[in-house]
Amino acid sequence: MLRTAHIAKSARQMRCGSWYGALTGLRASGSHPYRFITSQTATKISTTAKRLGLEDVNPLVLDAKYAVRGPIPQRAEELKLQIEQKPGSLPFDRIINANIGNPQQLDQRPLTFYRQVLSLLQNPEAITKVPESTLLQLYSPDAVHRAQKLLAQAGGSVGAYSHSQGVRGFRETVADFITQRDGEPASADDIFLTGGASAAVTNILSVLCKGPESGVLIPIPQYPLYTATLALNNSTALPYYLDEKSGWSTDPEQIEEIVQQAISSGVKPTCLVVINPGNPTGAILTPDSIEGILGIAAKYGIVVIADEVYQENVFDNVEFFSMKKVLRVLQKTKPGQFDNVQLASLHSTSKGVSGECGQRGGYMELVGFSDELRQVFLKLASISLCSVVTGQALVTLMVNPPKKGEFSFEQDQRERNAIASALNERATKLHSMFESLEGISCQKPQGAMYLFPKLELPKKALDKARELGCTPDEFYCKELLEATGICTVPGSGFGQVAGTHHLRTTFLAPGTDWISSWEKFHRDFYDTYRD
Amino acid sequence: MLRTAHIAKSARQMRCGSWYGALTGLRASGSHPYRFITSQTATKISTTAKRLGLEDVNPLVLDAKYAVRGPIPQRAEELKLQIEQKPGSLPFDRIINANIGNPQQLDQRPLTFYRQVLSLLQNPEAITKVPESTLLQLYSPDAVHRAQKLLAQAGGSVGAYSHSQGVRGFRETVADFITQRDGEPASADDIFLTGGASAAVTNILSVLCKGPESGVLIPIPQYPLYTATLALNNSTALPYYLDEKSGWSTDPEQIEEIVQQAISSGVKPTCLVVINPGNPTGAILTPDSIEGILGIAAKYGIVVIADEVYQENVFDNVEFFSMKKVLRVLQKTKPGQFDNVQLASLHSTSKGVSGECGQRGGYMELVGFSDELRQVFLKLASISLCSVVTGQALVTLMVNPPKKGEFSFEQDQRERNAIASALNERATKLHSMFESLEGISCQKPQGAMYLFPKLELPKKALDKARELGCTPDEFYCKELLEATGICTVPGSGFGQVAGTHHLRTTFLAPGTDWISSWEKFHRDFYDTYRD
Repeated sequence: MLRTAHIAKSARQMRCGSWYGALTGLRASGSHPYRFITSQTATKISTTAKRLGLEDVNPLVLDAKYAVRGPIPQRAEELKLQIEQKPGSLPFDRIINANIGNPQQLDQRPLTFYRQVLSLLQNPEAITKVPESTLLQLYSPDAVHRAQKLLAQAGGSVGAYSHSQGVRGFRETVADFITQRDGEPASADDIFLTGGASAAVTNILSVLCKGPESGVLIPIPQYPLYTATLALNNSTALPYYLDEKSGWSTDPEQIEEIVQQAISSGVKPTCLVVINPGNPTGAILTPDSIEGILGIAAKYGIVVIADEVYQENVFDNVEFFSMKKVLRVLQKTKPGQFDNVQLASLHSTSKGVSGECGQRGGYMELVGFSDELRQVFLKLASISLCSVVTGQALVTLMVNPPKKGEFSFEQDQRERNAIASALNERATKLHSMFESLEGISCQKPQGAMYLFPKLELPKKALDKARELGCTPDEFYCKELLEATGICTVPGSGFGQVAGTHHLRTTFLAPGTDWISSWEKFHRDFYDTYRD
Repeated sequence: MLRTAHIAKSARQMRCGSWYGALTGLRASGSHPYRFITSQTATKISTTAKRLGLEDVNPLVLDAKYAVRGPIPQRAEELKLQIEQKPGSLPFDRIINANIGNPQQLDQRPLTFYRQVLSLLQNPEAITKVPESTLLQLYSPDAVHRAQKLLAQAGGSVGAYSHSQGVRGFRETVADFITQRDGEPASADDIFLTGGASAAVTNILSVLCKGPESGVLIPIPQYPLYTATLALNNSTALPYYLDEKSGWSTDPEQIEEIVQQAISSGVKPTCLVVINPGNPTGAILTPDSIEGILGIAAKYGIVVIADEVYQENVFDNVEFFSMKKVLRVLQKTKPGQFDNVQLASLHSTSKGVSGECGQRGGYMELVGFSDELRQVFLKLASISLCSVVTGQALVTLMVNPPKKGEFSFEQDQRERNAIASALNERATKLHSMFESLEGISCQKPQGAMYLFPKLELPKKALDKARELGCTPDEFYCKELLEATGICTVPGSGFGQVAGTHHLRTTFLAPGTDWISSWEKFHRDFYDTYRD
């Protein structure tokens, strides 16, 4: 009989001999019998080695930095605990986690249709065992229908490992979405369902980076996952700067110069990371900029990693063009010039109006890769078996939400629009606040979930920061946290032009009171440190 | 206004200039307008580089092998497709996936209580918005109560990123389980909730391996995740052999010799992997063996990685002793000799009677590590944000199932016992079959989900394998697959003493017909190849 964790032990365990007494003696009495146990090896132990210290740790891991969960967010955790344990001991009664794009931590409600389907995927018995009239008190009919379809695609249970690339039927749904979005065909064979976009980035960079001789072009400022993953892979980051004055635009000529410099110094540029819409900048690339980037990719054989996880987070005075769409147009309009481009495009259920960060859903589309290379990506994915199957299902819901005429369509649209409006309202309000204040300026938001304002800090503040041994933007963010409970991330965590100072804040936190309290803090800070 | 993927575009997109025509022209007509688009960089493109080939791939990734999803399982996928597309074209009508411990792929039903709780976590509105009498037609009252508790611990939504170590309240539940299991205290600070045990292995080896100068002791045969992860980390595997004749026992003296050889050849043994209960062997370590292993860990300062994911899969003539329990006893009975031992113990929701592979739940407990080292593990975990929150919740259900007196207790026990009995029955039947046949022998199963029988292949079969360019065990497994649809993994994928041949099979597939068809295949194989 196979034993389970909570079924009483068999009497036959007595067979285990001398150890049995010591082990169960302890268990039964709860105190220590100090019984000596003989064993062959025991006598050999004369010295014991010291425990591991930081000097024993992989230096690549030690060096990796990830500011989004760095010292300021860690201090915020301490303050959160203090609020719980000693209410009233701080000048604020809650922490505003504006450091991370985590909408549901900040009371954003999940979309009802998504959750009804996921609920049924976990408990499919409800569909067959409960009368329909009862079932429909909890679930909309189209959610029931969708859950049945997804379950059939997944082979009957979300508890089984899927294909390492993800459930085939789910990948077909993703391919249909891309086909419709771009007006260009996509194939399920090229889709990898991944545990969020982060897992995809790890996969790509592991396959394509060989060590210090491999270079990866990274926008500055950037989402620090990229530099952290490169640090872990011991490969070379090749930073290219986004131009703040022109709305954080990308300059292909600058990128080409960096490529040439890298080549002449013995580093092979392997990948070019583009975050569009931008994190932390919120900027959106124009088709011209994308063409420039793809031109460099074609000329130098560089793989483009298009981090397009914010493709739904686009304000309505701009248009998002997917990298693949532009690539396909170029391949037709300029025959032969772009045929060799290899592109990995990433998407995620964590962002957009979905905001389902904890569900770990995402996908990567490989475009233009040879089959033998795709097999390498697949092998690497197979070592970690598969991504969470409910997260895979959620990806299909994100790319194929209820359609007009379906039962849940109107409610789903209402919920989406409400989330989008609230985000828009707060982004605008926050941006106006920054623009109205002394010593802070901010590019107009175009998309994503972030603002990345620039701080012009007075000399006294710079001196104070130096005295405290931190960077000026760290100093500002720390003071902001301690005074208001608003947790942000210093620009230094993302990279910035030397001598400039920024911070990244989300505009996800509900209400606008926190924006007012930030405004008050900023005025007080300047009153204290004005030269 | 923030725009979502499925809301019509604004007229203002016209601003995008020349690109707008080309892009929307394509979209509207579905055909290609062949419109030339000017851009600064376009003129620069004179040559295009070649696409990447295998020579451009990280050789560490190329070299990594993972046989559980290797060529034989891949051939099984092809055959599965053939059965769908041309029913009746093969001598069998389904594939038996005995290559991977994936119970729910093979019709094992999930435990009802788990799934009810997970279903409510996805749709908590049901609890507040539906009359109790309706709710209780779908959910047991203790499932409702548990879901409420877990949701409160998770901060209200499973859609938010959790702490990178996992939800604190969930970790406390895991610590309580370990405390009860071992009769020794455990702390939530030492628990990391991970996406299955595989993610934990990647985390530990990334932190502790620096390159070829770091050695990791790996049992042979082993679960190939370990060699694959070491290959990716460019670190050195130090194989130690399990002794088949004595039921795949572990010999600490042999391990110590390997440690000394490694040190004298300039490799520092950093970690020692123990898989208990064994995969693929199904063997269970005695406390004496564990003491021997811990003695070496203490003497040489080696971290023990205790892969204990099969701790629930234990047949009732043996006892499972956790590595930590034995360590704590030794620390009390032999003061000073084991104080420095550092241990990482892994568990998973994929195995046991849970079998929830697709949900990606697991935990790692760090024992004896310094706080500064634990911070490094945390930083690395934070780069991938957090493991899936529903998987984290499932870990708490696994370690804290319904208790006696609770509503779901009896049904839960019935379900657990039924799964355990069925596994036991098939393990016994499969083992008897192997023992009754010519040219195959198998150690008596003690636990886990696998048998690892030894094949004594006749010379003609060895010659045939050589002729086909595969190893003899690959040849047997291929022939078995092509004749019966039973998919297994050759012993060469796990490592084996040179000149011996094995295969790994799970005993998860339902029914016993497939066992009879294997028996018939084996007799035919020997009739064909007998010398």
